[in-house]
Amino acid sequence: MGNRRIVLVRPRDPNNIGAAARAMKNFGFTDLAVVTPHPPVWGEVVSAVNATDVLTNSRVCGALDEAIVDCSLVVGTTDRTRVEEKQTLYTPSDLSRELAVADYDLALVFGSEKHGLTNEDLSRCHRIMSIPTRPGCPSMNLGQAVAVCCYELIRDGAQAAIVPRPPEAATAGATEAAMQLSLEVLKLIDFVLPGNEPDLTRRLRGSLLRLNPTRYDIEMLCGILSRIKRGLQRTGEG
Amino acid sequence: MGNRRIVLVRPRDPNNIGAAARAMKNFGFTDLAVVTPHPPVWGEVVSAVNATDVLTNSRVCGALDEAIVDCSLVVGTTDRTRVEEKQTLYTPSDLSRELAVADYDLALVFGSEKHGLTNEDLSRCHRIMSIPTRPGCPSMNLGQAVAVCCYELIRDGAQAAIVPRPPEAATAGATEAAMQLSLEVLKLIDFVLPGNEPDLTRRLRGSLLRLNPTRYDIEMLCGILSRIKRGLQRTGEG
Repeated sequence: MGNRRIVLVRPRDPNNIGAAARAMKNFGFTDLAVVTPHPPVWGEVVSAVNATDVLTNSRVCGALDEAIVDCSLVVGTTDRTRVEEKQTLYTPSDLSRELAVADYDLALVFGSEKHGLTNEDLSRCHRIMSIPTRPGCPSMNLGQAVAVCCYELIRDGAQAAIVPRPPEAATAGATEAAMQLSLEVLKLIDFVLPGNEPDLTRRLRGSLLRLNPTRYDIEMLCGILSRIKRGLQRTGEG
Repeated sequence: MGNRRIVLVRPRDPNNIGAAARAMKNFGFTDLAVVTPHPPVWGEVVSAVNATDVLTNSRVCGALDEAIVDCSLVVGTTDRTRVEEKQTLYTPSDLSRELAVADYDLALVFGSEKHGLTNEDLSRCHRIMSIPTRPGCPSMNLGQAVAVCCYELIRDGAQAAIVPRPPEAATAGATEAAMQLSLEVLKLIDFVLPGNEPDLTRRLRGSLLRLNPTRYDIEMLCGILSRIKRGLQRTGEG
């Protein structure tokens, strides 16, 4: 896989740089370039929780050209209200799909909080991308925009990483035994009427199976049902 | 489409509440509930750019139960390091796919910045979800996590076709009522011992929620439990 760089152009708020670094780290990206940041010192900001190394290793560039010189795909982000009629607008999903089949060294470029990227900046980008926000509220917080894009870049690859570990499932036999015990209890409380037994059995079994019960679930259920049954039978004898 | 609610449980930093509201607004969500926020006034925070209406209309709740009472799918977020061996972990993509085919009223629940959701909180959730962050840096900023999840929920929206209506799902409130009735019955058969009530309650609630009960399921369950309760109480009197 090619390199993935995040480029922040003229960011004003150091905390947004820190927040961007944190989001990058969350999703496994470490290559950060910052183009002419607003003067206040930003090398050590509190928002870069666990990601100060990303800040420390970031490069400060004097111009966008310098930050993207070694990249083979430069993608500029903007909100849709700023895009000219003629331009083709990519979504983060489009970019993910493209990167899945092509081995680019990517630079993903974000503009300043207030003004975004200029047309001059965008003219240096192979693609223009926009996060699909609502027309009435298009402008995202910079750190949140970086988080959404980094998430999108790893989303499909991560699917395999989080494999749900299924807990030990109950066997069909054990589930059916619990089902029969349930029916015995239901008969003791006259819930099963002559006409409704097949339908009720079907519904109950359906509910039980939808639960995907574990061995533990079924053992607990049988324990409870046995005790209820004994309790109710004592009534009957009394 | 069902309602989409974001629930923040015990958030400490007002700016994170504002950032969450802003991200919600970016992606077209407006229903925010905040459970016992940390004291400082947060009704008007600067991070809620263009989203002060989301804050103004948000509800403050005294407990998680109150915030989710009318929801039919409650999804708790956590980082992977906090998940027990036995639990199945969903990704945001899994949730998107599920919501594309089922018409739930969703509550998406986020814990406090420092400690996340407790096991007690998670036991009230139908699903446990985790954003696929890297193992070495799993914990996301709250506002960024909300942004990523809101983005994922609308990402495929354009392609959404006609969705089949699933059977009417039970609300969290109705399910909890059935849960309480279950506990009463379990007490009558001495299944609840002094030490095991919290753990037992959590496990039972988990099983019940995993079932995704319909309104019909819950009505039938309450009918059965009431009758068992009466039957057992007759024993006690005898």
